[in-house]
Parts: sequence; structure tokens; C-alpha cells
Amino acid sequence: MVLAASRTALQAERESAANAQAHNGLERLQALVADDLACVNRLIVDKMQSEVALIPQLAGHIVAAGGKRLRPLLTLATARLCGYAGTRHHALAACVEFIHTATLLHDDVVDESALRRGRATANAIWGNKASVLVGDFLFSRAFQLMVEDGSLEVLAILSNASAVIAEGEVQQLLTANDIETTVADYLKVIGAKTAALFDAACRIGAVVAERPAAEAEALGTFGQSLGMAFQLIDDLLDYTARETELGKTVGDDFREGKLTLPVVLAIERAQPAERAFWQRALEDLDQRDGDLEQAILLCERHGTLAETLALAGRYRDQALEALARFPASPLRETLEEVARFTVDRGY
Amino acid sequence: MVLAASRTALQAERESAANAQAHNGLERLQALVADDLACVNRLIVDKMQSEVALIPQLAGHIVAAGGKRLRPLLTLATARLCGYAGTRHHALAACVEFIHTATLLHDDVVDESALRRGRATANAIWGNKASVLVGDFLFSRAFQLMVEDGSLEVLAILSNASAVIAEGEVQQLLTANDIETTVADYLKVIGAKTAALFDAACRIGAVVAERPAAEAEALGTFGQSLGMAFQLIDDLLDYTARETELGKTVGDDFREGKLTLPVVLAIERAQPAERAFWQRALEDLDQRDGDLEQAILLCERHGTLAETLALAGRYRDQALEALARFPASPLRETLEEVARFTVDRGY
Repeated sequence: MVLAASRTALQAERESAANAQAHNGLERLQALVADDLACVNRLIVDKMQSEVALIPQLAGHIVAAGGKRLRPLLTLATARLCGYAGTRHHALAACVEFIHTATLLHDDVVDESALRRGRATANAIWGNKASVLVGDFLFSRAFQLMVEDGSLEVLAILSNASAVIAEGEVQQLLTANDIETTVADYLKVIGAKTAALFDAACRIGAVVAERPAAEAEALGTFGQSLGMAFQLIDDLLDYTARETELGKTVGDDFREGKLTLPVVLAIERAQPAERAFWQRALEDLDQRDGDLEQAILLCERHGTLAETLALAGRYRDQALEALARFPASPLRETLEEVARFTVDRGY
Repeated sequence: MVLAASRTALQAERESAANAQAHNGLERLQALVADDLACVNRLIVDKMQSEVALIPQLAGHIVAAGGKRLRPLLTLATARLCGYAGTRHHALAACVEFIHTATLLHDDVVDESALRRGRATANAIWGNKASVLVGDFLFSRAFQLMVEDGSLEVLAILSNASAVIAEGEVQQLLTANDIETTVADYLKVIGAKTAALFDAACRIGAVVAERPAAEAEALGTFGQSLGMAFQLIDDLLDYTARETELGKTVGDDFREGKLTLPVVLAIERAQPAERAFWQRALEDLDQRDGDLEQAILLCERHGTLAETLALAGRYRDQALEALARFPASPLRETLEEVARFTVDRGY
């Protein structure tokens, strides 16, 4: 009921339309590279094996948890967009998914999040210890696969991305519970913790296809912009989503005192009494019944939910622009659709 | 007083001799490659920088915490032993230390150990979250440095070692509190979690010097054996060391219910009543006053402390044997001394 109250008429109206085409771009993309994706899925299961049985068990819990494989799909799709006809991108797409999974496992330790995709987190079942160590294994395995592939350029892209992701996660830790966090701080965090891997996943497509640097750059921009839009909408949904639909608990970020854009903007524009509210709820984490509703109300009063959505839309436009240099094709159109849906799911 | 009771006359006698030459091999090794080591130390400080200030702060706490730099020293020394005259091994030695530091940080999360080298752990000061993420950063940074170096062979060695270390740590998690753990299980765990990185650190020396595979293999065996001896003595000291001297709390492993060799052997030879004791103390973790003393008594009764020391001695001998194929030199002699001291500190 919180959510019904927080959704504007406009949003409610658009919802059925958006839901009708939900996952549409993504599903079409999955269909377009279905054979490649099947190979990647086999590789993922194959390469996470270890004689230490807990490793595939725990990794399988999260890798197989109905993930959409968005990041490896980007590697598969961009490689094909660049005319690549080989199979090297299968293992590299698996690397991207392993690195993503490792960060999820380490993030579970970190955020004590109770739900991920509607299932209990690995951490809740096996404990912090196992989550950290299995994450380390997947991370190492990703580098082993890259070494097997043998491209120093790919190794550079993904080791750089991994360092940037870790920096972003640490920075996020520092901005948590800090109501002085600025929009620039926030954008830097999501650029590092989320968009860097989208960027890398897409860039690799051009590298395996041995395309000129300008194309790798364009695909990197596409990935980076898509990642920014994706995270902005993710953070927006934390205030507006319906729990059952997304397997995501609304208000997670609020309860943890995370400073995401809707809140950062609302604090910027806060009256003294409002500022005292944010300080109590997010900085002191002294939260009471009705606080989440109040937070949503303040965000709506200052228009920050709509503004977050609008900013995501600008990143989507940048992503579309970056794709424009590639010749039109069903693949390019589908990538465009994925970019559009990334933002549409925010309505 | 526990310790006085647990030390045999023989041990007490040898102690002063051993202490007189304490760190002797290591200090001589540090002196022999002093210029290289100074470069590595500068690189370590330089490469753990990040604009996210908590990263160098936290990493510095552990990297600069009076570490002996044993692992990077092995890379420096083996490279010179192979006649290498360049500087590539500086960055690679820093990689080895970064990977080691990352595992320490993740191990701190894992083991809730209160002391490391006598200082509060990073985890106790900054929390689990930061330790995991800064570990991830150092790990990624290590791979960035290897990519800069450009050797796929080195990348293979260290990505393989990293995967094996993670497997060993998970396996250790599974054997904790399990009194069915066998000697073979134990040896497998320490082979993976400790000896694999010693092996890799030494192997890299031959690789940068572009020596034949047989030499890399011999140095790998040296490192592997040295690592086994090192961990065996470390586990022994957890039952026999004097706290002030080593900055290590005696009985840590016992309190956590870790199944290390002295205990694994004692359980193998236990009478039913003794077995019940081990089960209560290590499996159920229902520990009472005097339990640690009782554990040490049982280990002494079954001769398992001496046996652990003897096994470490056999690994030391294997390490010395592996070095024998290299021409005699002050460097080789010093590496031999390091191997001997690794075991001598157990007396």
C-alpha cells in the first residue's frame, strides 16, 4: 500500500503497457544469440566445477538463480554486431558473468541484503565465510579463462574493470549514512560499481572481433551509458517497485541508509525539518514506522523520482547514440530495445 | 604457564640457540636483495594508491604491518638465483604480496581472528565490508600489474594459484569442527591455502629469467615444500608458542575448532574418552577452562607435536633437495638457511 500511494497516476497508467513488453528486448536478444548463450551457459556450469563440492553448490545457487545473463549477453551481442564469427567470446562472456557473480557474493556479505532475485542469498544459507571465498574462486577462475583465451587486451579490460568496481564498492561504503553525499559522488559510485562492467562486457565484443579502437570505444560508451541507466532505475525501483514482481524488497536501500539519487536530490532541496528527518533516518539509522512512506512523499514533493527517471532516460539516449555508428540490423535494433526497456521498467 | 608446561626439556634447550639465529636466514636474504626489496616496497605503496582514501589506509595497515615480505622475497631471490639481471620481478613480487594481502584480508573476515602480527586486524577496525572490498581491490590490482608486465605465463601461474588458494580456504571451512578430518585432508588444505602461493612465487623467478621448464619446476617444488613446512610449524606454534614473542594468540586454532595436524593425529589415536573430549571441544565447540591444556597434554601423550615438527623437517629436506640442482652461491645458501629456520622456529 506504500507503493500504491507512491505511484503517480502517470506511472500507473504506463505500467500495464510496460509490463506487456516486459523483458521483451532482453528476450529477443536471448533468442538472437540463443546458440551462443547455450554455449555460455554450459561453460558457466562446467567451469565453476571444483572437487570442493561446496563451490559449485554455492556458486550454482547464485549463477543459476534465474539470472538474465544481461552482461554476458552484451558480450555475445556486441561481438556479433562487430561481425565476429568465432567462438572465443563464449568463454569471455562466462568470465564477465563470473566477475559479476563474485561481486554479488561479496556484496551479499556487505549489505546483509535479505533477498536477491526473491531467493535467500548464499550468505544467509552458507554464511559470510563461504560467500567471500567462493566469490574469490569465481574471480580467479575468470582470470584463468582469460589467460586460456590469451588476449592481454581482454585481460587489461577486465582487470581494470575489476579494480574500478572494487573502488566503487568501497566508495559506496563511505557514502552510506552520509547525507552530505553529492550527486557527483553518487554518479561516481554507480559509474564504478555497475557501469564499468557493462562497459567492459561490450568493449570485449569489439576486441574479439579485432575491430578498430573507435568501435571498441563506441561500444564501451554504449555499455557505460546502459549501465548508468540500469543502476539509476534499480535505485528508483527501490522506492517504487512492487515486491512480488521483482523479488526485491522495496525500501532496502532506505533501511540500510544508502544514499541513492532520489534521496540525494531530496536532501539537496530539503527544508531544515526535512533535513532533520533524513539525518535521523539515514545517518543515525533511527527509523520508525511510516518513515519509508515519508521518504517517498518527500521525494515526490521535490520531484526527485521523476528526475531520476529523466536522468536514466538521458543515459539511454547516449547509449542509443553510441549504437548509431553501427549499420542497422536486427541485432542493433534489439540492443536499442534493451536500452529502452532498461528505462521503461522504471515507469 | 600453559606453555611452560607444554614445552619439553629438549625444546627449552634448543630455544635459546634457535632464538639467537632467529630471522637470521630471512634477514640475510633481505640484505642480499636489499635494492630489489626497496623497489618492491616502493611499488607496493605506490600501486595500492587510490583516490578512494580508505583503500590505501586499510591496505597500508596490513601491508605495512611489519610483514617479513617472505613471499615477494622468494620471487626476488629465485629470479636472481636464475641469473636474472632485469627489473621485471619487482612488479611481480609486488603482485605476489598483493595476492597474499588480499587473502589475509578475506581470511580476517572469515576467521574472526583477533590478532595478526600482534596488531588489531583491519576487520576489527573497519569492519567486514571494507576488508572484503579492499581485498578485492588488491587482487584486481595484482592482475593489472601482471597485465602491464605482459607475460601470459606469469598470469597463468598466479591465476591458477589464486583459484587453488580459494579452493583450499573453502575446504578448510568444511574441515573445521569436523573431527573425521584425515591427515590427507589436512595436507591438501595447507598445500592449497599456503604452499600454492610459495610455489608460484618461486616459479615466477625462473619464468622472468627465461630458464628451462625443469628449473621452474625445481623452484616450484622448493616453494611448495617450504610452504608446507612453514604452515606445519605455524600450526604447531598455535599449541606451543609464547604469545608475546610471535604476536600470535596460542590456542586460536583450538578455540575456533580448526583441525590442524597435531590434533588430527591425536584424534586418530584417541581412546574413546579422549575422542569424546575432542568432539565436545572441537566439534560442539563446548569449551571449558583447562581444555586447551588438556588438548596439549593429549597431543604430547600421543607424540603429535613432535611428529608435526618431524614432518615439517621432511618438507624442509625436500626443499633443500630441490635447491641442490642450482650451483652453490651465497644466495642459494641463504635460501637454504631460510628453509632451515622455517622449521627451527618450531623448537
